[in-house]
Amino acid sequence: MGKAIVRLKDIADATGFSTNTVSLALRNSPRIPETTRETIQKAARKLNYLPNAIAKSLVSRQTMTIGLVLTQITNPALTETAQALELALGKLGYGTLLATSNNTLEDEIRVLELFRSRQVDGMLIYPTSPQHIEHIRPLREANYPVVLLINDPAGTIDSVSMDDRLGAEKATAHLISLGHSRIGILDGADPNRNRDKQNGYREALEKHRLKFDPALCADPVGPTSHDGYRAMDRLMQASNPPTAVFASTDTLAFGALKWAMERDINVPGDVAIIGFDDIEFAEFSAIPLSSVAYEADTVAEKAIERLMTLIRAGETLPKPEQTLIDPKLVVRQSTVAQ
Amino acid sequence: MGKAIVRLKDIADATGFSTNTVSLALRNSPRIPETTRETIQKAARKLNYLPNAIAKSLVSRQTMTIGLVLTQITNPALTETAQALELALGKLGYGTLLATSNNTLEDEIRVLELFRSRQVDGMLIYPTSPQHIEHIRPLREANYPVVLLINDPAGTIDSVSMDDRLGAEKATAHLISLGHSRIGILDGADPNRNRDKQNGYREALEKHRLKFDPALCADPVGPTSHDGYRAMDRLMQASNPPTAVFASTDTLAFGALKWAMERDINVPGDVAIIGFDDIEFAEFSAIPLSSVAYEADTVAEKAIERLMTLIRAGETLPKPEQTLIDPKLVVRQSTVAQ
Repeated sequence: MGKAIVRLKDIADATGFSTNTVSLALRNSPRIPETTRETIQKAARKLNYLPNAIAKSLVSRQTMTIGLVLTQITNPALTETAQALELALGKLGYGTLLATSNNTLEDEIRVLELFRSRQVDGMLIYPTSPQHIEHIRPLREANYPVVLLINDPAGTIDSVSMDDRLGAEKATAHLISLGHSRIGILDGADPNRNRDKQNGYREALEKHRLKFDPALCADPVGPTSHDGYRAMDRLMQASNPPTAVFASTDTLAFGALKWAMERDINVPGDVAIIGFDDIEFAEFSAIPLSSVAYEADTVAEKAIERLMTLIRAGETLPKPEQTLIDPKLVVRQSTVAQ
Repeated sequence: MGKAIVRLKDIADATGFSTNTVSLALRNSPRIPETTRETIQKAARKLNYLPNAIAKSLVSRQTMTIGLVLTQITNPALTETAQALELALGKLGYGTLLATSNNTLEDEIRVLELFRSRQVDGMLIYPTSPQHIEHIRPLREANYPVVLLINDPAGTIDSVSMDDRLGAEKATAHLISLGHSRIGILDGADPNRNRDKQNGYREALEKHRLKFDPALCADPVGPTSHDGYRAMDRLMQASNPPTAVFASTDTLAFGALKWAMERDINVPGDVAIIGFDDIEFAEFSAIPLSSVAYEADTVAEKAIERLMTLIRAGETLPKPEQTLIDPKLVVRQSTVAQ
């Protein structure tokens, strides 16, 4: 803006009242007669006056703004959480600023600096990778309120997240309980990314004495349904293809489902498919999709609760806490014929 | 942050150089010997120094940040545009801050104030309603760079948007060309909201001498697929129900589709359904969905082009311009059996 900032003094000049009276009137103080308040508020509106949050923040050191970092703005599980966070923070009087890292560490660092330079009171972060959060640790060490929305395996930063490992274990165990023993997985193979779902899948296999077979793992490379379609195609080329597939997101699962539909391969008869996140569309897909619920409201509620505790703590923060939310299995037609 | 802001003086104290030398060294000025620059930059990194964008902005009046206001963060057409905008702005060196109005005018005003107080260099706005943009006009009148992402019927603010009216006309004309004459519409009835799709629907009927019938209009009230499902249910209760339905968003259309699936009503045989936005999931739904493409990349490209023109114009902005993008029809199985 810069061009036309109206200050209290401008309103004082325009109305003939003192800046102190103007300030009180704009805060609707009962110490100022109602007619005076109205005159001043009208003048403020006419001059297009807005309280300058930056100027205020330089004094109070509080901006009543929270920064929220997403990895990807087109991921429905993340945007549902973002919406829940924004609405809940709004009720507490906080504005929310969002930015996305586009799943790159470089952009994530840039976005954190952007928020930091804008003096937000705290940050909620979906990091690109749980293996690369060393650039976030200095914030925590400087007693800056920050809550991760994925699990921090090292436990050095507060985190509130769905228990992805447990969710993946539940999804895989569900397929095993239906009699499947060759179970494929569509999940990123990058060792720098979140391995929780991969680990949960392997643990379920182990618990049921099924052998892990790398031929049953397909890396979709990207996050879209088209990426899921192509990964499913590769997976089903195996000499001994799976009879069930766990896709690490619903979006990938929709691609796998389409691959089967196009080939008249019966789901779940020939191949059962389960996704992850239980996004709104899961029940509207070609075959309603079984999934693991991402509880956006619960994540939002607990993350804000923790962030507010950190903000209120002031100079010395309590020890970091990890909160893991137990995800529910949602069974639909793509795994159990109805 | 507040708590641990490192200032130039802290780096000066730590290295023994003057704040002036420190400042020049951090800007990599050739006036400072290279070894000194290295010493100072190393100390800055060690102290976790970040240039204070706010302090800088108070001097340069440029923050290299753009504010983006969405009505709803869970609408895929909007988030795809937001992603396209963010990536393109990033390439130009701009950070993007997002906020959502949750489709309420009150929150929209709050969010605009938040951005204004953060001194963003310009704003891109999806307003809650094209009928209520009077709170945005003062920004334009103060020569502040702002581009709307829906059409401003009054032409007083720059806008870049899909031509919703034309898109709705195309969708309706497509249904008419298939032989339908009783065509229902699922669209909000609130006269304060965007009426472009409703108008396009009515114009197509008129052009083909079909009578507008209020019994064929159902207001879904909310934006979700469940809202679409319930509106479809009401629509099909009519004594003479439609043989084709135009849903104003794909998300609503998925609900309409599910309503038909659950009742073994053939789509498109018994009722044809077309949506709007052509979101990624449209081709993965129970019956692949015909739709009208929302061209997120084109909207983003043209909106940024216009915003940059306004930013470069400085104190006196050129006259407002309206850019309307002609949307393509995407025909799939939900209107034409394959």
